[in-house]
Amino acid sequence: MTADVLAAWNDGPAKARIVEFVEGVTREGGVDYVPPSERIAVFDNDGTLWCEKPMPIELGFILKRFVEMAEADESLREQQPWRAAREGDHAWLGGAITKHYAGDDSDVKVLMAGILQAFDGQSVDEYAEAAGAFLRGGKHPTLDRAFHACGYVPMIELLAYLEAHGFTNYIASGGDRDFMRPVTEEIYGIPSERVIGSSNALRYVEDEKGGTVTYAAAPDVFDDGPVKPVRIWSRIGKRPIFAGGNSNGDVPMLRYAGGSRPALRLLVLHDDDEREFAYTAGAEDALATAERDGMIVVSMRNDWGSIFE
Amino acid sequence: MTADVLAAWNDGPAKARIVEFVEGVTREGGVDYVPPSERIAVFDNDGTLWCEKPMPIELGFILKRFVEMAEADESLREQQPWRAAREGDHAWLGGAITKHYAGDDSDVKVLMAGILQAFDGQSVDEYAEAAGAFLRGGKHPTLDRAFHACGYVPMIELLAYLEAHGFTNYIASGGDRDFMRPVTEEIYGIPSERVIGSSNALRYVEDEKGGTVTYAAAPDVFDDGPVKPVRIWSRIGKRPIFAGGNSNGDVPMLRYAGGSRPALRLLVLHDDDEREFAYTAGAEDALATAERDGMIVVSMRNDWGSIFE
Repeated sequence: MTADVLAAWNDGPAKARIVEFVEGVTREGGVDYVPPSERIAVFDNDGTLWCEKPMPIELGFILKRFVEMAEADESLREQQPWRAAREGDHAWLGGAITKHYAGDDSDVKVLMAGILQAFDGQSVDEYAEAAGAFLRGGKHPTLDRAFHACGYVPMIELLAYLEAHGFTNYIASGGDRDFMRPVTEEIYGIPSERVIGSSNALRYVEDEKGGTVTYAAAPDVFDDGPVKPVRIWSRIGKRPIFAGGNSNGDVPMLRYAGGSRPALRLLVLHDDDEREFAYTAGAEDALATAERDGMIVVSMRNDWGSIFE
Repeated sequence: MTADVLAAWNDGPAKARIVEFVEGVTREGGVDYVPPSERIAVFDNDGTLWCEKPMPIELGFILKRFVEMAEADESLREQQPWRAAREGDHAWLGGAITKHYAGDDSDVKVLMAGILQAFDGQSVDEYAEAAGAFLRGGKHPTLDRAFHACGYVPMIELLAYLEAHGFTNYIASGGDRDFMRPVTEEIYGIPSERVIGSSNALRYVEDEKGGTVTYAAAPDVFDDGPVKPVRIWSRIGKRPIFAGGNSNGDVPMLRYAGGSRPALRLLVLHDDDEREFAYTAGAEDALATAERDGMIVVSMRNDWGSIFE
């Protein structure tokens, strides 16, 4: 296996550093050698592995559910977040996330309360079926492609390249864990047990078929910022040596990679408004940290020959 | 591969049902066939995979820490749980667990509060090192063997047998996740990322080396009873088809296995006071459920030719 598998990456410093790092940690007897069981790689999902604009894909799924709820219950129509969902007010919704990354959680809290209500009592199996159907059947609002095809080809190649070199890849996302799980194996080759992310609280409800796990109307984990390294340890029990992210919420995860070992930390920079989107809102701290700590900043415009399949 | 790998199991109904089940779910084209990615097996640890009497192995580790704390701070010596630790009052300590399984959590709460205090501020790396040293160096109080050799050989054989047939094994224990992790790969062939269990709260503390994950003096998850299926879903995202346990706290996990699929549920019965211990305290509901639902009850005395290596 050679670096040819990274065919969608342009030759340049980003690709060269990835290949150099992987060759270093896999060279038996070399000073940087890391045994396969310790080759843990963690990746944010929204904006790192797949597209997150004009709003996170998961939001589209939630909006669809909000619209259904507002159709069924008139009293919800003048309240946020149902009003924004019904009126297609993407600015309010996208703004909630941007404000969160800038440190203002007021709108995100209103949104979260709505989400808790939206899935209260649903079983994990029902939710997985609905999420899978949405991701396989739905289309991105502006990119003229299925949600399912919104993964970045260079990152999918990177995942395969790492796996071929004995790495074990995990998703460590701020997004909802159970929303991604139905498709992560197909899109990224990452099975459900290696998806870490946010979740509502769950409860076990006894029944005649051995019981059902269902969502409760309470938050459990919002897997962002300093929570990411905590959740990575909780789930894996090892410190990663490779981490990829794109926003301020990924900074602790990126910094956590390595410890006393060599590590590669990679930040995806959205600077291609022709093929994808150009934005740095919510990534200001991450870009400053990347420069200060010598992380790789991947320019979508310059480093990626193609973005989508 | 044949059933010969279950060499420490006596021929009898328990062994026969295990082999019959595994052959059924692995027979391609058969009515009970389950693809490898769905062959998930979950096992409790204390009393199911290794010895839990006269008290759980983890308690010995905690007591050692309590004694150190009481030596350093005189004010702790007259308080529980430090007093019991210092005086070697195993009855109080073992009783806390037995009372928990009988529905009375008063002493277990006192114990838990002490445990939170005992590891407050310790990093996960320091804790893992201390737990690993204790398990490798310490000796069981009555069985004349290292803690590390307190795993049940027939269960270790069963794990290997399942793995050889495409199963993925997980530990889903009420015990502390991070206490087990340093040795589960060596003893059971189960790596840290497949250990589910209880945990204190963790926090990420920034430092010059990329940050450290440390324990906070707050509970996070007590992974027992109805919490077990919830945590199994959270970690794996799949419903197991094989589950093994030994106490009332395992009943929801045992019942959860299978769902619409065939499943094997196994309960270890401690009825061998010559080679191990004989007790059913804390397993009354589990035994009643096993009989009602047709789970396999494994008699240590009759079904196991040998217990320890």
